[in-house]
Amino acid sequence: MAHLNDNFLKLKAGYLFPEIGRRVKVFCEANPEAARRLIRCGIGDVTEPLPPAAIAAMHKALDEMGVRETFRGYGPEQGYEWLRAAIAKNDFRDRGCDVADDEIFVSDGTKCDTGNILDILGAKNKIAISDPVYPVYVDTNVMAGHTGEANEAGTYSKLVYLPCKPSNGFIPEPPKRHVDVIYLCSPNNPTGAAANRPQLEAWVKYALEHKAVILFDAAYEAYITDANLPHSIYEIPGARECAIEFRSCSKNAGFTGVRCAFTVVPKTLNAQTKSGEFKPLHPLWLRRMNTKFNGVSYIVQRGAEALYSLEGKAQVCALIEHYLGNAKVLREGAKQAGLKVFGGVNAPYIWVRAPKSGTDVSSVRTESETHGRDARATNSTSWQAFDKILGEANVVITPGSGFGARGEGYFRISAFNSRANAEEVARRMQALKW
Amino acid sequence: MAHLNDNFLKLKAGYLFPEIGRRVKVFCEANPEAARRLIRCGIGDVTEPLPPAAIAAMHKALDEMGVRETFRGYGPEQGYEWLRAAIAKNDFRDRGCDVADDEIFVSDGTKCDTGNILDILGAKNKIAISDPVYPVYVDTNVMAGHTGEANEAGTYSKLVYLPCKPSNGFIPEPPKRHVDVIYLCSPNNPTGAAANRPQLEAWVKYALEHKAVILFDAAYEAYITDANLPHSIYEIPGARECAIEFRSCSKNAGFTGVRCAFTVVPKTLNAQTKSGEFKPLHPLWLRRMNTKFNGVSYIVQRGAEALYSLEGKAQVCALIEHYLGNAKVLREGAKQAGLKVFGGVNAPYIWVRAPKSGTDVSSVRTESETHGRDARATNSTSWQAFDKILGEANVVITPGSGFGARGEGYFRISAFNSRANAEEVARRMQALKW
Repeated sequence: MAHLNDNFLKLKAGYLFPEIGRRVKVFCEANPEAARRLIRCGIGDVTEPLPPAAIAAMHKALDEMGVRETFRGYGPEQGYEWLRAAIAKNDFRDRGCDVADDEIFVSDGTKCDTGNILDILGAKNKIAISDPVYPVYVDTNVMAGHTGEANEAGTYSKLVYLPCKPSNGFIPEPPKRHVDVIYLCSPNNPTGAAANRPQLEAWVKYALEHKAVILFDAAYEAYITDANLPHSIYEIPGARECAIEFRSCSKNAGFTGVRCAFTVVPKTLNAQTKSGEFKPLHPLWLRRMNTKFNGVSYIVQRGAEALYSLEGKAQVCALIEHYLGNAKVLREGAKQAGLKVFGGVNAPYIWVRAPKSGTDVSSVRTESETHGRDARATNSTSWQAFDKILGEANVVITPGSGFGARGEGYFRISAFNSRANAEEVARRMQALKW
Repeated sequence: MAHLNDNFLKLKAGYLFPEIGRRVKVFCEANPEAARRLIRCGIGDVTEPLPPAAIAAMHKALDEMGVRETFRGYGPEQGYEWLRAAIAKNDFRDRGCDVADDEIFVSDGTKCDTGNILDILGAKNKIAISDPVYPVYVDTNVMAGHTGEANEAGTYSKLVYLPCKPSNGFIPEPPKRHVDVIYLCSPNNPTGAAANRPQLEAWVKYALEHKAVILFDAAYEAYITDANLPHSIYEIPGARECAIEFRSCSKNAGFTGVRCAFTVVPKTLNAQTKSGEFKPLHPLWLRRMNTKFNGVSYIVQRGAEALYSLEGKAQVCALIEHYLGNAKVLREGAKQAGLKVFGGVNAPYIWVRAPKSGTDVSSVRTESETHGRDARATNSTSWQAFDKILGEANVVITPGSGFGARGEGYFRISAFNSRANAEEVARRMQALKW
């Protein structure tokens, strides 16, 4: 009798974004009038067209695929050498980070990689995860059997949650206790917070002391505006011995529908075998890619390569400036509406405290102690805010509780939109009566 | 101290195809003259350009991505509805198989899917795998901890190997003992054998009796020429209750470098929980896709959709005919060279018994009892044949032992090539003195 993986049965409801999609669909079907003025600031999906340099490169690659002499079949599973070289040089070595071409693994998404990375890690690791957090980190650990059951707020036993709250600027501190694997995301999804150098140094110090591995998700790196903030964890000495970094073309070049990302696994990063030896993770990840992956589409890899050309870089910059401009509009709009606002400066996300329904927004509690059940007693819950904003402003946001128990009482506004829509959302937020 | 996944340390050498690549590279560097006349019939990679219908559709999709109004970001993780509908109708319902649109999951490769499917299955399943077999099935089970250590021939303890040999036409019979999960591949890689209806009926009967799950890899389905052979396991009554089917655009439409495949998970397929309940696997696979995957490139999905247009179908047919024509040339050539030849009729692979080196080829032993160490005592080993054919004919084949212990003493010739190359390989095989 075939057995299924019982760990899947521990997962809570649907994955966040399909659940949002379902609620929006129900609302729109019931309110066709409101549906026509709906603005989506929920899922963090880009809206602007691809950089022309990428389009041109992909057209060219497609034409090559139509001619026998230039046709390409299977490429190297870990990505073509020309793309790995362009990434390692432009994103790392030109910025003073010691990363070799063959430490770059090209993939079809950071979501995939942050999930798949668990394949090469042991089952007994103690896992630390920020709260709130990108749900994929939690859910993939649940699926892999690294957790117990969840409580009502969606908190799983066996995981170590690192609270992110106003008092620490939503950047968690290393815990007092020992952990083996740490997920960090900076600039952060969902809070929009970005770690500074001392914060990352503290984490690298902790990881080296504990021989832990940091899984550093830098998918939003391109949104950093503050010149003092590190763009890569490899800017921190020692990180090559303790960190894997995830990057993506999704949010900088608009590749969410095109699919290209990459992961850096330094050859100097070791983990322990059952017998207590330390062995490098690089050959394990290479083997995983060789065995369970067949490379990113050649056409797409040529598109990604073009992002590193002079014109490609300028076009990516323009996209980032556009979305950051939206973030500013949304941030200021929400502020002027009296809402308590975080993020949106070094990230395309604005993290907002949900006010108490039926009261003046100035009564919003923002103390760091307020979260989970406490928050629900005083302020709107995240899903209450979601339903209110959808129903009254016809704007889709993301409920903070979808990112973890400490996200309860918050919501996330995405800046991925047209400028006109961002401005309209800012106006509607100001008109909204709580 | 972070722990790595010790199961990876049980894996033998490199994954087969990177190892072949390495040996070929060494040979070519040492023999630049021979390198110039090298013909690759090793890795099963297509050589002919993409169908024009797919190219045109992808150019159009790319242009859409360059305009705000038609730009596409994240699509549904499991594939766009229009592609799932085209697949379910054309590949299944039009052929009398009961498969719904939402039972189709579009992915970036059958290699990925056959590996990732283990995510939703429990750790305690008894796994049955053909021998010889596509190495990914074995290696992904090793990585997942479903096996013990391998012996010298690469046979892992805890797996149940199903011998494929001349006496059963290289199609394994259901075992006497109980197993929970069975990998079947038809038309077969590497042997080129294709299961007939009674053979698949026996497997479905076994699976229903044992409440087992069949993982049916039909990536080479398009190569079936015999009108009596089933194209899908869903042609067999009862298969919807016991089988998952994997299909690919790689080998029919030449998408190996483009990346598109799909997996069928019927909603009527159940597996057991730890508490002994039976629950459907469909929501687990959907959840896995939602959480660990972000969909296939929109551009690529439009290319795949075009394969189901009238002109797309005709172009795919022409590609298949081309490769099957090569297979015939290679098969006849090897036969005329006195070699014992299997496959190559309903599949793009020719499976050849390696003759004894230094003797007349007519002395080749082909009894079903001959395999593994026995074979090595009389005939050339697979790698000896590989080195001889590379060194003397300057042709790259795939050593049968790379597919498992029972592949020892065989080699695989791939028909993916130009007609001129296939004819030249046939000539060189005939000129080769063993």
